[in-house]
Amino acid sequence: MYRSEIKVLDCTIRDGGLINEHLFEDRFVRAVFQAISAAGVDYIELGYRASPRYFAAEKFGQAKFCSEDFLRKVTEGIQSNTKLSTMVDIGRVDNSDIPLKKDSIVDMMRIACYVKDVDKAIDLVKHCADKGYETTVNIMAVSTALFPDLEEALKQLSECPLKAVYIVDSYGALFSEQIHFLTQLYAKYLNPKKIEVGIHCHNNQQLGFANTIEAIRKGANFLDATIYGIGRAAGNCPLELLLSFLKNPKFKLDPILEIIEKDFIPLRNEIEWGYMIPDMITGILNQHPRAAIEMRSSKEKKSFVELYRGLLNDSEMI
Amino acid sequence: MYRSEIKVLDCTIRDGGLINEHLFEDRFVRAVFQAISAAGVDYIELGYRASPRYFAAEKFGQAKFCSEDFLRKVTEGIQSNTKLSTMVDIGRVDNSDIPLKKDSIVDMMRIACYVKDVDKAIDLVKHCADKGYETTVNIMAVSTALFPDLEEALKQLSECPLKAVYIVDSYGALFSEQIHFLTQLYAKYLNPKKIEVGIHCHNNQQLGFANTIEAIRKGANFLDATIYGIGRAAGNCPLELLLSFLKNPKFKLDPILEIIEKDFIPLRNEIEWGYMIPDMITGILNQHPRAAIEMRSSKEKKSFVELYRGLLNDSEMI
Repeated sequence: MYRSEIKVLDCTIRDGGLINEHLFEDRFVRAVFQAISAAGVDYIELGYRASPRYFAAEKFGQAKFCSEDFLRKVTEGIQSNTKLSTMVDIGRVDNSDIPLKKDSIVDMMRIACYVKDVDKAIDLVKHCADKGYETTVNIMAVSTALFPDLEEALKQLSECPLKAVYIVDSYGALFSEQIHFLTQLYAKYLNPKKIEVGIHCHNNQQLGFANTIEAIRKGANFLDATIYGIGRAAGNCPLELLLSFLKNPKFKLDPILEIIEKDFIPLRNEIEWGYMIPDMITGILNQHPRAAIEMRSSKEKKSFVELYRGLLNDSEMI
Repeated sequence: MYRSEIKVLDCTIRDGGLINEHLFEDRFVRAVFQAISAAGVDYIELGYRASPRYFAAEKFGQAKFCSEDFLRKVTEGIQSNTKLSTMVDIGRVDNSDIPLKKDSIVDMMRIACYVKDVDKAIDLVKHCADKGYETTVNIMAVSTALFPDLEEALKQLSECPLKAVYIVDSYGALFSEQIHFLTQLYAKYLNPKKIEVGIHCHNNQQLGFANTIEAIRKGANFLDATIYGIGRAAGNCPLELLLSFLKNPKFKLDPILEIIEKDFIPLRNEIEWGYMIPDMITGILNQHPRAAIEMRSSKEKKSFVELYRGLLNDSEMI
């Protein structure tokens, strides 16, 4: 599978940081940036651009806020052609927090929102584009979006200054036929306006990599992945599998294998991600992983079947 | 996805036993049989029917040999509508070792072979069918079979008294388009003779479940899976995901969730299976997991990149 338009975005630090409040050491973030650059990956997302006004800064790592100081500190001196991205959640930043592109080393702002907030996202897209950035919109939890709402959102987004709009399977609930449907739906509205379809998968049903491939087959050209699949709960599409699949000689697997062995296998003993039954249960039920995450941190011991039956009953009771 | 013809076969004990020489306690095998029966799974494969003449009996658990005594001991007293299967490898059993069906509680004999040994497999199929058993042929390592050889094998197999012929992705190397191609090729030769297509996937690239779904979409009706994906190296398609996907009300998820929590999570701390980088490397290179398994048990420490580069160089040097 080789298509020159394909862009791979590594969101190891941004999505992986959801497990540990982004409390990564600078050394670790630099090592990831170095490996991703050496692997020839197109973009790297180094965190969220949240405003410290909305979060207690002492509880989070610097990748939660992505100040220019932090970004320069973790990238300077490393040979790289990889573009930098930061993610912005609607309502967690003020427009005035975003510097002009000429004062920033960031290339792309990715705006994450639910389909109901797409108007706010469009506002922020326009603001970021006016300041000189590439932009994307990442429609979260698309597996629960109603078809007419999604179609309306895509129509509106197709009129915006965007590089890509992402299918985000936040709950890891989608199967290949649904990925095909969504990719073709997005493409129908976006491709005529030269906006690409993006794909961001979670691995609750061990379908993160498979669904990314299925989106590629139907034309998605912006692909999210993380090293060793790190990410909240079940994690994401593993970058090492994706690069191997893509066959583009510009991508190098060795730096990713090296950093997995040196940094990610030890890290996996400290923080937890990957296929786990509680998150598999929320995935098959197309629900937010909240209940699975709470179950793991709760003192009260709930069994897998109690979690499953509880969530089933909740949805049947409405 | 509901199709009444679909049969699910659990090979937890047979394939999982490849990790630990089948040294499972009887209690564990009984617990698996009970959970699989309660879950309404169609078949359970309790091991290999190898002859003790060819193996040192003291090195292996009883599921390697599947004597009638063993099979009765691990199943008796348990309410079940699940049919019993055992696997036979070409050259590891003599015809005289196989009792008449009327003297056995086994329903199905599955004959595993490489495509080059299909004539021997056919001999054994006929022998087993004559003795009264249901039979399948499982063509191993099909990702390395040459097309004309495979086509010839399927033609011959279509004339045999078989329930199903399996696509076995032993190396976990196949992608969805290849699964589609193989399923349709098998179906073309087998379905007109009322023989079903079977699918048995390994998880080296996290595609075990995804590829099983893709085979179903193209008509495969015999589906292998294991509890919590247990199996040699990267393991297999996880049964809990497959049952949830199939939506057939005859399948119950609760007994599988229960036994995962009680027995498989503790077992995973004793023996190793699942997505691991060495087996991912053999998978992306379409090779036997031998080198990955050796690497883990070797005292000499080899890095992931050394394994990858070594296997790449081996294949380039020919």
